[in-house]
Amino acid sequence: MTTKPLPKTPRVEVVNTGTELLFGSVVNTLLAYLGQELFTLGFRIDRQATVPDGPAIAEILREAFRRGGIILVTGGLGPTSDDVTREIVADLTGHPLEYHQAIFDKIQERFIRRNIKLTSRISRQAFVPQGATVLPNDFGTAPGLYLPSQGTRPPLFLFPGPPRELRPMFQTYARPILQELSGASDLTAQTYRITGQGESYVEEAVGTDLAALADLEVGYCARPGEVDLRLIGAPAVLEQADAMVRQRLGTYLVATGSEEMEEVVVRLLTSYRQTLAVAESCTGGLIADRLTNVSGASKVFLEGVVAYSNDAKTRTLGISAELISAVGAVSEEVAAAMAEGVRQRAGAVYGVSTTGIAGPEGGRPDKPVGTVFVGVARVDRETLVRKLFFPMDRVSFKRIASQYALDLLRRALVGLMTDDR
Amino acid sequence: MTTKPLPKTPRVEVVNTGTELLFGSVVNTLLAYLGQELFTLGFRIDRQATVPDGPAIAEILREAFRRGGIILVTGGLGPTSDDVTREIVADLTGHPLEYHQAIFDKIQERFIRRNIKLTSRISRQAFVPQGATVLPNDFGTAPGLYLPSQGTRPPLFLFPGPPRELRPMFQTYARPILQELSGASDLTAQTYRITGQGESYVEEAVGTDLAALADLEVGYCARPGEVDLRLIGAPAVLEQADAMVRQRLGTYLVATGSEEMEEVVVRLLTSYRQTLAVAESCTGGLIADRLTNVSGASKVFLEGVVAYSNDAKTRTLGISAELISAVGAVSEEVAAAMAEGVRQRAGAVYGVSTTGIAGPEGGRPDKPVGTVFVGVARVDRETLVRKLFFPMDRVSFKRIASQYALDLLRRALVGLMTDDR
Repeated sequence: MTTKPLPKTPRVEVVNTGTELLFGSVVNTLLAYLGQELFTLGFRIDRQATVPDGPAIAEILREAFRRGGIILVTGGLGPTSDDVTREIVADLTGHPLEYHQAIFDKIQERFIRRNIKLTSRISRQAFVPQGATVLPNDFGTAPGLYLPSQGTRPPLFLFPGPPRELRPMFQTYARPILQELSGASDLTAQTYRITGQGESYVEEAVGTDLAALADLEVGYCARPGEVDLRLIGAPAVLEQADAMVRQRLGTYLVATGSEEMEEVVVRLLTSYRQTLAVAESCTGGLIADRLTNVSGASKVFLEGVVAYSNDAKTRTLGISAELISAVGAVSEEVAAAMAEGVRQRAGAVYGVSTTGIAGPEGGRPDKPVGTVFVGVARVDRETLVRKLFFPMDRVSFKRIASQYALDLLRRALVGLMTDDR
Repeated sequence: MTTKPLPKTPRVEVVNTGTELLFGSVVNTLLAYLGQELFTLGFRIDRQATVPDGPAIAEILREAFRRGGIILVTGGLGPTSDDVTREIVADLTGHPLEYHQAIFDKIQERFIRRNIKLTSRISRQAFVPQGATVLPNDFGTAPGLYLPSQGTRPPLFLFPGPPRELRPMFQTYARPILQELSGASDLTAQTYRITGQGESYVEEAVGTDLAALADLEVGYCARPGEVDLRLIGAPAVLEQADAMVRQRLGTYLVATGSEEMEEVVVRLLTSYRQTLAVAESCTGGLIADRLTNVSGASKVFLEGVVAYSNDAKTRTLGISAELISAVGAVSEEVAAAMAEGVRQRAGAVYGVSTTGIAGPEGGRPDKPVGTVFVGVARVDRETLVRKLFFPMDRVSFKRIASQYALDLLRRALVGLMTDDR
């Protein structure tokens, strides 16, 4: 809920079509993408629906037409027989489908270039409702479509379902149209990303005072290893709130906006001209994967080792077998030796390590499933190790452990270790 | 669309609440989870909506009450002031909130155990609409709630938003109730997971003949590096379809059901008692991460190396600097040397490698962004290398490259290399 409701920006509805979304074989990542993009244009999504391929698309569009606003539909533009959005929209809006040779030629050219056989079904994608604007698909075959409002029918966008096709299409071809449809908005959003404290701590720290500010919307969102605090309001109010949030959250504040922990770390390493190597046991490559999702990571990230077996810890990281058998692979000593070992091996300034018990098996009374040690070694400084406990499913465990390991590195990088909890 | 519509199983609506879902700061993973689980109970989700925290929750629930069926609501049960689902449902259903001391005690005990300070806001979570069944939360604080149908109001489930809390709650406490609400269903679903061919190829191969079968629903879904073919029908029809699909798709068929490529590979390695080491350049740890998401991977996956820099390729994988400067790090020769190098280093039976240009920078006319070589080395056999081209965003590129590398290993493991395309 909003602590103070804000004036409404233009209404938007998103309709995601696709039986696979309701059936559970695919996670809908389009809504989050569209939500972020639309906000930067002054819009906010008021409502979203997912419906199966088929007649339910017509039903939900009729409802949305009645409610008005701008409608964005995703999915159902592909070549297969369950792709029916194009036909349904042509029917509902009274704009019959027309064949566009130029679209077909572009698709054909794409297939030839990639050396893929053109199937007969592909030609369905060259049909366009009369009067619609074609939104070219530079990363796939099905073009998007835009039907301007007509009478009481609101403006309607149709996008292909694959995210790697929709995203660039949205940026290049839909954004300029939406910019025109948007009235100017002087609302701004700011998201604060917090690691190391839970949601209720964050609200306790800032909630009451933020609620006292006029015309500010406040939201909290907890995810594995992170809490997002989201503020929406006019720039002047946000500035006031910003000072308070920064002061109260201190070193728990990792980033603002959409910057991820791995982006923060790569940014800090890059700007301080430092290098990094990573030795992972229980996180199994996730830290390296997260770091290398960041463009430019290759300049600071030298090497990663996934030392899953004890042998690998000895062979590649130089940890003595005696140490492992004396204190166990999941221990403060081994975490420290892994961080320092990979740092030396790669000739990096920093070394990061994780060793823990992801489960579901391998727990012991003194080291139950969920136990993890994260370490950070730095040339000419003391190696830092933290013991943590995240008793949860394997994938969440890996995620949180990677988050806290990267956070320990972040704190070391910004020299905040004196504030260490 | 369904090629042949099937008799309706009981209607279900899912309502996901949370401004953060519409705002784009969080991806909704709950819908896919619920979709999969509900299907196994004979249900299918007919419609899903996402609404912001606040009065929109009441509006969508009133609509859903009118449509009937079973309603599952997620989110808005937390301790913070934007969590209002509990209050809205109490109000809409006419069941006032009552304080449950036992819930509060359980929350308090959890906080003490984890050594976290109890904030005053937490007590909100101990309020329950009169007559509701409490669904205990074994992995968080907010309990779920179940309100049986009353008069024309359909049965209503309220779940907390965090997936790691909802999932076990659903399994342990909601599933038995839903089982009772479900009439028996003799429909079965089968999903076929295909790698190495696109969506339109798959439909061309099997579409016409599947459409000729009575009472079979057919769906296709393309994701980076994969196509899912989904069939729903009575067991007898599915058996007929199954034989055809297997024969037509041959070695492109990776798995059935929800089994992921990494699970297939770990399963094959385990059952053939083989071991694996991985050397990643452009996939940056993603292959190791995927493999270690599989419980039991530690028995077959010995070591991973993320050799992002050329130095690391030389130092850790033993690739001569002369070779790299002669043919370039992104080459067939280096891919082969990486796979063999990591295999030898770890003393594994198999070695897998990737080297490519993820972009957005680093492309060259002869090796544009998207170029990737994947390799598989095996003790006493010839090393296999494939050159591929996936010109797309960095994260999709990493995903598809990891998929094809694992697929090359899978083909080697099942001895299918004679069918290599």
